[in-house]
Amino acid sequence: MIQLLHTPEGVRDSYGAEQAAKAEILGRIRRLFSLYGYQAIQPPTYEYFDIFNAERGTIPSREMYKFFDHEGETLVLRPDFTPSIARCAAKYFMHEEYPIRLCYDGNTFINSSSLQGRLKESTQAGVEFIGDNSPASDAEVLALTVDCLLASGFKDFLVEVGQVDFFKGLVDEAGLDDDVRQRLCGLIESKNYFGVDELLFDMQLPDGLKDAFLKLPDLFGDPNDILRSARDIARNQTMSAAVDRLELIYDRMKDYGKEKYISFDLGMLSSRMYYTGIIFQAYTYGTGDSIVAGGRYDNLIGQFGKDAPSVGFGINVDILMAALMRQRLNVDVPVQDAVIVYDIGAETEAIKKAEELRGKGKSVSLIPYKDTEKHVEKYAQEHGIPEIIYVGRS
Amino acid sequence: MIQLLHTPEGVRDSYGAEQAAKAEILGRIRRLFSLYGYQAIQPPTYEYFDIFNAERGTIPSREMYKFFDHEGETLVLRPDFTPSIARCAAKYFMHEEYPIRLCYDGNTFINSSSLQGRLKESTQAGVEFIGDNSPASDAEVLALTVDCLLASGFKDFLVEVGQVDFFKGLVDEAGLDDDVRQRLCGLIESKNYFGVDELLFDMQLPDGLKDAFLKLPDLFGDPNDILRSARDIARNQTMSAAVDRLELIYDRMKDYGKEKYISFDLGMLSSRMYYTGIIFQAYTYGTGDSIVAGGRYDNLIGQFGKDAPSVGFGINVDILMAALMRQRLNVDVPVQDAVIVYDIGAETEAIKKAEELRGKGKSVSLIPYKDTEKHVEKYAQEHGIPEIIYVGRS
Repeated sequence: MIQLLHTPEGVRDSYGAEQAAKAEILGRIRRLFSLYGYQAIQPPTYEYFDIFNAERGTIPSREMYKFFDHEGETLVLRPDFTPSIARCAAKYFMHEEYPIRLCYDGNTFINSSSLQGRLKESTQAGVEFIGDNSPASDAEVLALTVDCLLASGFKDFLVEVGQVDFFKGLVDEAGLDDDVRQRLCGLIESKNYFGVDELLFDMQLPDGLKDAFLKLPDLFGDPNDILRSARDIARNQTMSAAVDRLELIYDRMKDYGKEKYISFDLGMLSSRMYYTGIIFQAYTYGTGDSIVAGGRYDNLIGQFGKDAPSVGFGINVDILMAALMRQRLNVDVPVQDAVIVYDIGAETEAIKKAEELRGKGKSVSLIPYKDTEKHVEKYAQEHGIPEIIYVGRS
Repeated sequence: MIQLLHTPEGVRDSYGAEQAAKAEILGRIRRLFSLYGYQAIQPPTYEYFDIFNAERGTIPSREMYKFFDHEGETLVLRPDFTPSIARCAAKYFMHEEYPIRLCYDGNTFINSSSLQGRLKESTQAGVEFIGDNSPASDAEVLALTVDCLLASGFKDFLVEVGQVDFFKGLVDEAGLDDDVRQRLCGLIESKNYFGVDELLFDMQLPDGLKDAFLKLPDLFGDPNDILRSARDIARNQTMSAAVDRLELIYDRMKDYGKEKYISFDLGMLSSRMYYTGIIFQAYTYGTGDSIVAGGRYDNLIGQFGKDAPSVGFGINVDILMAALMRQRLNVDVPVQDAVIVYDIGAETEAIKKAEELRGKGKSVSLIPYKDTEKHVEKYAQEHGIPEIIYVGRS
C-alpha cells in the first residue's frame, strides 16, 4: 500500500503554498512575455526523436525518455523547448518577414543519472525572438530576463553574458580541429588552467595564442573591464566583431536602464551546440544552478527549413522557486476570503450566501459544522482564511 | 526536411489566436476553481504503472504510454488525473478531517487507435472534492461545472446526471453476476433495447424486472419527470435511496439557481469503474463528445490508504475549445496595444518609448523599419495591433 503513494525517482508533486506560489510566479512571467509582445505557443509534450537528435544539439540520446506509438515510431518527451519552437517557427511562419516573438511554458524531461539530485521533470518558461539578428534583439531578451527576475522578487542576481564567437575566432586563429576545440571548451568552462596549458603545450601553439586561451577563463566580471581586456586579446576580425557586438548590446542595456544586472564572461561556453553568438545564464545566491539559460542560435531554425536568426532563453521555474525559498523571499498569493460553516439543514441559506459572495468576486468555500468553533478557527487559521461565516447556528 | 516539420500522429501544436483563446479560457476556469475554494495541485506527468492499473479502473493498459526509467521501473504518462489526485490526497492529507478541495490542469495521454480521430494528448482541467459525501457536495461540483461552461461563453448546454446506484440496485434485485452486469451496462449505454431484451430473456428474469431494465435507457430528460418514473421502478432500498439522493441534489441545484442546466439520465453508466454515486457529462452542440465528465467515487482514495468519499470532474479543454469554435463563440483575449517601428540608429529612443509604455501596463513590441508604411500597416492589421508608433523617422 505504501508503495502506491510514491512518485517515481526524480519527479514530485507540487501542492499547497508551494504550488500557489509557483502559479503566481508563472502568471507574472506570462504577463511580462505578453508586455513585450510575445505570443504563446504550445508544442506537444512528445515529438519524433529526430527533432531532438544530435544535429539539433540538445542533450545526449540516452538522457531522453523514449517510447513508441502504435505506428512503431520513436517518440521522445521533450528535453528542451527550443528545437520544438524552431520546428514551429519553420512550419507556421515560413514566409513571415517581420520578427516573430514566441513564448511558452510547460515541462521538460531529462532522464539524468539520479546521483545528480536534479529533477527529471522540470517546469520551463521562455521566449524565442526569431528573425532579427541585431544587438537590440539580444538586449531585448536580456532585458526581459532581468524583468522576469525582478518580478519574481529577486533583488540580488546577475545575468552573465558570454559570446561564443570570441572563442570560435581564437580557435580559427590557432587552426584547432573539432576534437581539440571540444576538449578545450570543457577545460575552459571548468576553469581548469592546468589542463588548458597542457593541451596547448602539446599542440605547440605560439606563446601569444596560448596566453590568449589561458586568459579566457579569467575574462569575466564588469562589462567595461572585460571589453577592454578582450580588445587586447582579439587577434582577428571574428574576435573583434564579437567584442563590438558585446559593446553594442551593453549600450542597448543602458537604454533599458538594466545594465547593472549584466556581467560578461568570455570563458562561458555551452554544451548546447546550437548557440552561435551570445550565450547567457542568470544566477542568484541560494542555488548553484542557473535560473535562466539562453543565447543566440542563428543556424538552428535553418535545420527545419527556414533560414532565420534567433535568440531566446528558458527560465527553470523549479530552480527559481527553490532560490526564492532559500532567500526567504515571500511570494504574495491571493488568499481565500472566507469559509462558510453551515449546520445540517441550513444548506440553502449557506449556498445562497456563498453565491452572493462569489458574485462579488470573493473566494468562499463551504464546510459542514462539526465539533467546536475552536476546531473551525484552527482550520481557518491553518489555511490562512481571514473570515469565518456561520450559517444556521441559532 | 519536410518530415522534420511533423508532429506525431494524434498530437498537435497550438499557437496564435487558438492558443491565446485556450490560455484565456484556462485562466477563467482557474479563477472559478479558486472562487469555490479549490487549491491547485500538480502531480508529475508520469507515474508508476500501478497508480493507473485496472483496480483503479481508468483505461486499458494497452492504451497507456509506457516507458522505463534508469531503475527499470515501468512508468506511465498519466491517462487521467483522478488516480494521481487520489494518491496525493492520501499522501498529503491523510489526517485532514475537514473537506479537501483540490484542482488541477494539465495534459493527459491516451494511446488510442488513430482511427477514432481523437487527440492522444489533451488538456484537462478539473477538481476533486474529497471528504464530504453529502448531496450538497455533489451539487457543488455540478454548479461549478455549470459556472465553467457559462464563463467559457456557452449559452446552450446540458449537464446530464446519472446515478450508478440505481442500476446497481436493479442488478442486485435480479441477482446478476459481474459478467452479465458488464454486458448489460454496455447494451443500456448504447440504448440497444433489443440486446437488453435478448440478454434478459436468456436469463429468464421475471417480467417486472426485465421491464425495469428495458425502461432504463428511456429514463433521461427533465429531472421532475425522471424522479417520478424512477420511483415507480424502484424495487428496493438501494434504488429508492438513489432516487432520494438525486432529488436532494436537484434541490441544492435550485439553491444555486442552476437547476435549468441539469437533466437526469439513469441509463448513463460509465466504463470508469471507480464511480459509485452520481456520474455526469456535459454536452453542447457542435461536438458529439462530452466537454466535461465527472462523478462520485467513494472507494478510490481508500485504495491509496485514506478512507474518504469524493466527487469531482474533468473538463476536456480541447473539446471545449472545438465546440466554442463550431458555435462561432468568440473568446475575448487581450490584444497587443502597440508596435514601435524604428529606424536603424534610433534604437535608444525606441527602447525608451517601449519601456515608458510597458511601465503603464501597455504591451508593446519593437520592429525595425523596412519597406513601406503600407507594409507596416498590413503587419499591424494582421496581428490585430491597434497602434503604430514610428520612431526616428524625420
